[in-house]
Amino acid sequence: MTHDKLPLEPLFDKIEELKPRFIDRLTRAVAIKSVSADETLRPEVAKMADFLVDELTALGFVDIQKKDLGIQPPPVNDPKLPLPPVVLARSGADSSKKTVLIYGHYDVQPALIEDGWNTDPFVLTHDTVKDILYGRGSTDDKGPVMGWLNVIEAHRQLGWELPVNIVCCFEGMEESGSVGLPELIAQEAKKYFSTVDATCISDNYWLGTRKPVLTYGLRGVHYYEIVVSGPAADLHSGIFGGMVGEPMTDLVKVMGSLVDSQGRIQIPGIAEMVAPLTDEEDKLYDPIDYSIDDLNDATGAKISLHDNKKDALKHRWRYPSLSLHGIEGGFSAPGAKTVIPARVSGKFSIRTVPNIEPRKLDQLVVDFCNEQFAKLGSVNTLKAQLIHDGNYWVSNPFNDNFTAAAKATVDVWNIEPDFTREGGSIPITLSFEQELGKDVLLLPMGRGDDGAHSINEKLDMSNYINGCKTLGAYLHYYAKQ
Amino acid sequence: MTHDKLPLEPLFDKIEELKPRFIDRLTRAVAIKSVSADETLRPEVAKMADFLVDELTALGFVDIQKKDLGIQPPPVNDPKLPLPPVVLARSGADSSKKTVLIYGHYDVQPALIEDGWNTDPFVLTHDTVKDILYGRGSTDDKGPVMGWLNVIEAHRQLGWELPVNIVCCFEGMEESGSVGLPELIAQEAKKYFSTVDATCISDNYWLGTRKPVLTYGLRGVHYYEIVVSGPAADLHSGIFGGMVGEPMTDLVKVMGSLVDSQGRIQIPGIAEMVAPLTDEEDKLYDPIDYSIDDLNDATGAKISLHDNKKDALKHRWRYPSLSLHGIEGGFSAPGAKTVIPARVSGKFSIRTVPNIEPRKLDQLVVDFCNEQFAKLGSVNTLKAQLIHDGNYWVSNPFNDNFTAAAKATVDVWNIEPDFTREGGSIPITLSFEQELGKDVLLLPMGRGDDGAHSINEKLDMSNYINGCKTLGAYLHYYAKQ
Repeated sequence: MTHDKLPLEPLFDKIEELKPRFIDRLTRAVAIKSVSADETLRPEVAKMADFLVDELTALGFVDIQKKDLGIQPPPVNDPKLPLPPVVLARSGADSSKKTVLIYGHYDVQPALIEDGWNTDPFVLTHDTVKDILYGRGSTDDKGPVMGWLNVIEAHRQLGWELPVNIVCCFEGMEESGSVGLPELIAQEAKKYFSTVDATCISDNYWLGTRKPVLTYGLRGVHYYEIVVSGPAADLHSGIFGGMVGEPMTDLVKVMGSLVDSQGRIQIPGIAEMVAPLTDEEDKLYDPIDYSIDDLNDATGAKISLHDNKKDALKHRWRYPSLSLHGIEGGFSAPGAKTVIPARVSGKFSIRTVPNIEPRKLDQLVVDFCNEQFAKLGSVNTLKAQLIHDGNYWVSNPFNDNFTAAAKATVDVWNIEPDFTREGGSIPITLSFEQELGKDVLLLPMGRGDDGAHSINEKLDMSNYINGCKTLGAYLHYYAKQ
Repeated sequence: MTHDKLPLEPLFDKIEELKPRFIDRLTRAVAIKSVSADETLRPEVAKMADFLVDELTALGFVDIQKKDLGIQPPPVNDPKLPLPPVVLARSGADSSKKTVLIYGHYDVQPALIEDGWNTDPFVLTHDTVKDILYGRGSTDDKGPVMGWLNVIEAHRQLGWELPVNIVCCFEGMEESGSVGLPELIAQEAKKYFSTVDATCISDNYWLGTRKPVLTYGLRGVHYYEIVVSGPAADLHSGIFGGMVGEPMTDLVKVMGSLVDSQGRIQIPGIAEMVAPLTDEEDKLYDPIDYSIDDLNDATGAKISLHDNKKDALKHRWRYPSLSLHGIEGGFSAPGAKTVIPARVSGKFSIRTVPNIEPRKLDQLVVDFCNEQFAKLGSVNTLKAQLIHDGNYWVSNPFNDNFTAAAKATVDVWNIEPDFTREGGSIPITLSFEQELGKDVLLLPMGRGDDGAHSINEKLDMSNYINGCKTLGAYLHYYAKQ
C-alpha cells in the first residue's frame, strides 16, 4: 500500500517522550485487582472504574458517566452483587468531525502467583533485557485502554486538537460474559452513541509475533448438548450390565457420528450454507505471516489437519468446525469406577461462518442427532438442544475504517498489516455493529503469544508504544477518509 | 428336593428363644462405627475387632489371633495408618469331623445421617410394625457375622456339640478392597486353614425379596482405559477448531465401536470363548423368582434389553457385558466450556464369565481398539490398556456344600432355594477357593432390597432369625454329607 502520509512525526515523537508516563499509567492500572470473576474482588473492579473516571477527567473528557447495570443475575454467591459500571465519556462535539467510539474493558482474568507466575501478577514488571512488560491485564485489556488515554495525553501535550470526536465505552465485565452491555448499547444507540460514525475495538491480538494485523471477521459459536437418559439412578455395572440399555453407549455413538477425525462435519446441509471463497478473499491469505510450524509450536504437537498455511487458516477463520468438549454425568474422575451412568450429557459446539443461518443450523443438528439415535434402536431417550449461540461477524476489510487503520499501521510498523479473522467470537463486536449500524474495526495492540488468559501475561514494550502510535495515527487517517 | 430331615427343631426353638440376645448382640456391633474407608474411624474398626475377640472368647473359641496386616499402602492421608487385623478363631479340633471355614467382614460402608437416613445409622433401630432392623452393617455384614456367633451360642445353651469344626476368618477391610487378605489366605492355607474342608461366605443377598437363594457364581471384571493424546495442553476451540485433530473425536469413535445399543459386544473373539449353556444349567433358571417387572422396578425405567426373565438373568450372570463408564480429561462440569481437551481417557469394563481367558481377552480388546483407531487415520495417538482385573468364579451347585445349604434352606424356609449367580464380583471368593483348593459356598442372609451400600440399610427380622437357623442347619447337613 502506498498512501499520502500525514505529518504525524511530532505525535510519534511525543509518544516516545511520554513513555515513562505511559508505563506509569499502565503500572497504576495493573495494580488494581479488577478481576470480574471473583466476587470478593468486585470492589477492586469498582475502584478501576473510578481510576478511569479520574484519568478521563484529568485528560479533559466531558459528560463522564458511570452507567449502573444493576445487580448481577444468578448464579452468584452474593444475591446483591452490583455489576461494575460501564464508563462512558466523550471528547469533542464538533459536528464537522467524524466521531469514533472506542471500546475496551477494564476488568481482567483471575491471577494468583501460585498459578505459576514468575512475578506478582498485579505488579507491572519491566523485563529490561527483553523489553517486555509482565502483569495481569497488560495486554488484555488494560494496555490498549491505557493506549487510548495515552493518545489523548500526547495530543494535549502537543497542543493538537483531536482529529475526530471520541466516545469512550469501557466495561468491567468482559471476562465474565459482558453481562448487561448489549442492553446498554441498545439503550444508548440513539442517545449517548447517536453521533458515532465508526467503532474501534482494541481487544484482540496479532496472529503471530512478528507482523501487525487488522481483524475483519470472527466466527460465531453454537453450543449444543445431547442428553441421553435411561435408568432413574446410576446402576452398578456388575448387577445390571448386559440386562439394560446404557445411556453412555448411545451417547458416544451419536457424538461419534457428528465429525470425522479429519475435522469434517458429517451433518448434511451445513457445508452447503458456507459462503463460497472469492478470489479476492483467497488472495488475502497469501501474504499472511503464518506457517504450519507456527501451528505446531502453538499446540506443542504435530496434529495439523492441513499441510499448508492457507488451508489451515481458512479452516480457522472461514469454515465451520465442530468440537466435542466432553461428557457430563459419566465417571470423569481418576481411577476406576464400575458405574452405569443414568443420565449423560454430551457437549459440543459448532463454530459458524457466513452464510450459515443460525436457526437452520440448529434444526439440522438436532434432526441429525435424532436420526442417528433412532438408528440405534435404543431403549433410552435422547434430547439434543442448543445451549447458547452467538453469531459470526465479518466486515469489509477494504472500507474506510480498515483502510485508515492499514495506513496507520504502515506508518508506524513500516509494513502492510495482515488482514486476519479470528476463529473465536467477541460477541460485543456484533452488538456494536448491529445496534449502531456502523462499521467496527478490530485493531489489536498485543502479540499472539501474550498469554492473555494465562500465567505471565505480557505486553512487549514495542507493542505498547507502537500500539499507541497506531491508535493515534488511525484517528488521523480515519478523519481524512 | 425331598431329603431326610435332621432333628433340628430344638436348635430352631432355641434360636427363637434367644432372639432378644441376638438383637442385643447386633445392636452392640452396629454401635461401633467400623467404617474402613474413613481413616479417622480406624480406631473404631480396631475396636470392632476387639469386640469380636471378646465375643469369640466368651463363646469358647480357642486359638484366637488378631493377624496384623501392617501399614495401609498409599493412597492414604496417614502414612502410618495400620490396617485392621484379620480375626482368626477356631472351635473344635476333632479330626473325625469336617472343618468349615466361615468368612465375614466386620467393617462397614460410610454412613452419615445427613445422607438421608431416617434413623441414626449406628443405632440399630427395630421398626416393630414392619419387623425390620435398620442400621449400618445390619445386613452387610455384621448381621451374618453375628449370625454365626448366635449359632454357636444356641448350641452351647442346648448343650449340643457343634457337628463340624469351625475356623473363623473375619476381616476389617472388605469395603475398602480387602487389602492384605489374599496374602494372608495364601500364607495361612497350609497353617491355620490346613484342615478346612469347605468355606461358607455369608456376604451377599437374595436376588429379590421373597425367596432364599444359594449363589454359585460371580462374574469377573476387566477394567480398561483408552487414552487419546493430541496437543501438549488443552486448546481453545475457537482458535484451533478445524485446524487440528481432536482427541475427543477419536475417543468417542473408538468407544462407540465396542458395544451396540442392544448390549452386544462388538469385539470379535469374545463370544466364542463363552462356555456353552447346558440343559442342566438352563433348567436352573426356570424356577427363579424374578421378572422383567422386578428389573424395571430396580432401574426405575423400562430399559430392559430382554423380554423374558431367563434371558435377562443369563445376561446378568453367564454372559459377558461391556459398560462404558465415562471419560476423564474432557469437560465434565455443568455449563458450557469451549475447550479442545488435550488428553482424554475413556473408561470401560467387561464383565467376564467362564471360559473367557483373561490374557486372551485383554489382547483382543487392545488389538480391537488399535484397529478401530487405525481406521480413523487420526493425527493423534491412542493407547488402550488394562487397568485391573478380577477373575470370574463359578462353583458346582450340586456339590456337598451347596446340597447341605439347600437342605438347610428347605427346613427353615419351607421352599427350595433359587440357585443364582451374581453379576458383580467378590474377589475374595476366588482367593479362598484357589488357595485352599476347597469348595466355596455363598449363603446369603439378607434380601435384595436391603440397601447394603445405601442409606437406611436394613435386615428383616425374619431374615436375621431364619438366617441364623439356616447357617446352623447348614453346618449339621454339611457334617452328614
